[in-house]
Amino acid sequence: MLYSSMLGKTKKEAPKDEESISAQLLLRGGFIQKEIAGVYTFLPLGYKVLQKIIQIIREEMNAIGGQEMLLGSLQGKDIWETSKRWGDEEVDVWFKTKLKNGTELGLAFSHEEPLVNVLSKEIKSHRDLPLYAYQFQNKFRNELRAKGGLLRTREFIMKDMYSFDKSEADFEIFYEKAKQAYIKVFNRVGIGEKTYLTFASGGSFSKFSHEFQTVCSAGEDTIYVSKEKNLAVNKEVFTDEVLQELGLDKKSLEEVKAVEVGNIFPLKTKFSDAGNLKFSDKNGEEQKVIMGCYGIGPSRLMATVIELYHDNNGMVWPENIAPFQIHLVGLNLEDETTNKYAYEIYNKLLEAKVDVLFDNRVDASAGQKFADADLIGIPTRVVVSKKLGQDLEVKKRGEESSKQLDMRGFLGLFK
Amino acid sequence: MLYSSMLGKTKKEAPKDEESISAQLLLRGGFIQKEIAGVYTFLPLGYKVLQKIIQIIREEMNAIGGQEMLLGSLQGKDIWETSKRWGDEEVDVWFKTKLKNGTELGLAFSHEEPLVNVLSKEIKSHRDLPLYAYQFQNKFRNELRAKGGLLRTREFIMKDMYSFDKSEADFEIFYEKAKQAYIKVFNRVGIGEKTYLTFASGGSFSKFSHEFQTVCSAGEDTIYVSKEKNLAVNKEVFTDEVLQELGLDKKSLEEVKAVEVGNIFPLKTKFSDAGNLKFSDKNGEEQKVIMGCYGIGPSRLMATVIELYHDNNGMVWPENIAPFQIHLVGLNLEDETTNKYAYEIYNKLLEAKVDVLFDNRVDASAGQKFADADLIGIPTRVVVSKKLGQDLEVKKRGEESSKQLDMRGFLGLFK
Repeated sequence: MLYSSMLGKTKKEAPKDEESISAQLLLRGGFIQKEIAGVYTFLPLGYKVLQKIIQIIREEMNAIGGQEMLLGSLQGKDIWETSKRWGDEEVDVWFKTKLKNGTELGLAFSHEEPLVNVLSKEIKSHRDLPLYAYQFQNKFRNELRAKGGLLRTREFIMKDMYSFDKSEADFEIFYEKAKQAYIKVFNRVGIGEKTYLTFASGGSFSKFSHEFQTVCSAGEDTIYVSKEKNLAVNKEVFTDEVLQELGLDKKSLEEVKAVEVGNIFPLKTKFSDAGNLKFSDKNGEEQKVIMGCYGIGPSRLMATVIELYHDNNGMVWPENIAPFQIHLVGLNLEDETTNKYAYEIYNKLLEAKVDVLFDNRVDASAGQKFADADLIGIPTRVVVSKKLGQDLEVKKRGEESSKQLDMRGFLGLFK
Repeated sequence: MLYSSMLGKTKKEAPKDEESISAQLLLRGGFIQKEIAGVYTFLPLGYKVLQKIIQIIREEMNAIGGQEMLLGSLQGKDIWETSKRWGDEEVDVWFKTKLKNGTELGLAFSHEEPLVNVLSKEIKSHRDLPLYAYQFQNKFRNELRAKGGLLRTREFIMKDMYSFDKSEADFEIFYEKAKQAYIKVFNRVGIGEKTYLTFASGGSFSKFSHEFQTVCSAGEDTIYVSKEKNLAVNKEVFTDEVLQELGLDKKSLEEVKAVEVGNIFPLKTKFSDAGNLKFSDKNGEEQKVIMGCYGIGPSRLMATVIELYHDNNGMVWPENIAPFQIHLVGLNLEDETTNKYAYEIYNKLLEAKVDVLFDNRVDASAGQKFADADLIGIPTRVVVSKKLGQDLEVKKRGEESSKQLDMRGFLGLFK
């Protein structure tokens, strides 16, 4: 991509009302724009990162037998009344709207009820189970306050998976697989080391749910981390009884702020009961379907990565989710030889299928270009200039030292 | 994919209230389910088709310089009031909702205003143009009646592209490129021959827009087709004056029903004026940005393909967008040798990266399996059975004749 023709350039300043460092950097870097409070545009740079995160999650969900599908955002009242989640007193984040004839509709904040409704037409016998369905679909949440940029928004793409099993035992096996798949996602995205499986409230139908909490000062949650056991406890269930059950010594725990980047939840039969989702077993007897749900918000993940990986000059993207692999900086492009050489390098990289952003501006100074490269945070910066001649200066973002390579040596890196 | 564990099986009957043949077949085939009137679930089979169509469109948009991004669904009032499209008397398909504090929001039925607003922060000078931005994002339209299955829904993913050019001349060049890209999309999806570039109303700011209309009895539009000139005129602009302008002889035209599968539209400066989107030219003088918009609904396209390609037994998917390439039907799977051989073929196809659906049910009859294969409409059906022994029966959907191949001959087709 030529930087000169890319939609979304760097900005000198972020809007003053953005509190989180991730939002400030993403806005300044030209990755996102704010539309209204809690609703953001993903510009091409930001959309590329989002798609890379989505693809990682998709691969890990497919690897454990997940089947991708898509449910609607517009929701009818009936099925949500059955589960007692239609009323604003029961769920305080609904956005509601109406059809022309006055029929009330809601905008899905989650999708348990509609999926149970869909599956009630698909599941008859034990042969139809298990099923593991997931989607990447917009969620709408009427948050009282939306701040923290992409960490908490009113509209966001969520990966929500739901499991449908024949028995508690089968459910437990899948739940453990999902847990491992989540750990893989966080490792691949680059935040594995700072992310803890965290015991949290299971609500009214299960003792615990499991959150994946990433230690980070911008986090809204308080958790107690046991580094030794590689797990944590959310403040909401931080009692002596729970610590004893988990075999944790209060003194060994560290209180930290954290961002909830994922949540997996045993639902047992709460929604299958409400939606009358049953199956006949081998003996022809009716049995209840055991459910679980598994959520990750790719855009929150994106913001969390930036909260962890940035310095005073800008973002520092992990390789796996960087918008581009190479930031090619062309200096002295008014010089014909240098200009020609810079475009030659760019075209060779494209031929080698390297994802490259080429700062080909002739009207920006070297200082501006270096500052922009640091702000955007692509893992490898490569400079072409008159002084360097046929050589290239290659530098990793976040490292001080650089090395000089000739074209052959540089392109050899991508063989 | 093993059919036994796939979410979304065939059904004996479609709901009685579905009028269109595409909706009936997609529902019976296990591709979609209806949630509420005008809102459908895409089950894995349907989602696969949708994603293939989306990928084709994405490739063609990228090929003409489109940059993918994502705007929000939740829309603030201000920018839509400026363009006079906020009121229900001006736009009759709005879904409106509210924040907790009472602030009114709308659900985007289109995205001109928010994109102009985004770009007003990105476009300053002639060096920032042209820009061609597109997205695949949900659109919400409060249709009075939603019928025809996926042909007209209240919520659907739309590919909407918007062009921003420095001059009318530049715009015209891009508009022609977009037209060609649309033709490529319809050719690749398999409906090119039945799809006509159609002159339609340009609204208040342009003489014509261009629709792509696919001749089809389920269509809501009436168009007049000139086969000779390979174009058509929408009834809404079917006047002697227009015919004369287009050099068409009334007698040579055929009146037909058609589905509008795409629409490209010169917007001129309507929205850039309203959103105050300007740029400074080479002389530092302020100029207006010239816009166009370009829409395709992938799910309507999917339904249109089925309206054209089906027979009494079910759907007949074109190769490029079929959910799978091969429908492997295993018969007599209770026989150990046949069972082992069928799974061997299945695994070899997976190894060869062939997208295969394997009907591995032991509790379904041969008749049921053949009927399901016809209904689902995957291009190539391959049978393994006890009688065939080491041979395979290979048959194209929609053709009567089949041929017998041994494993080596069959797998050789995918080398």
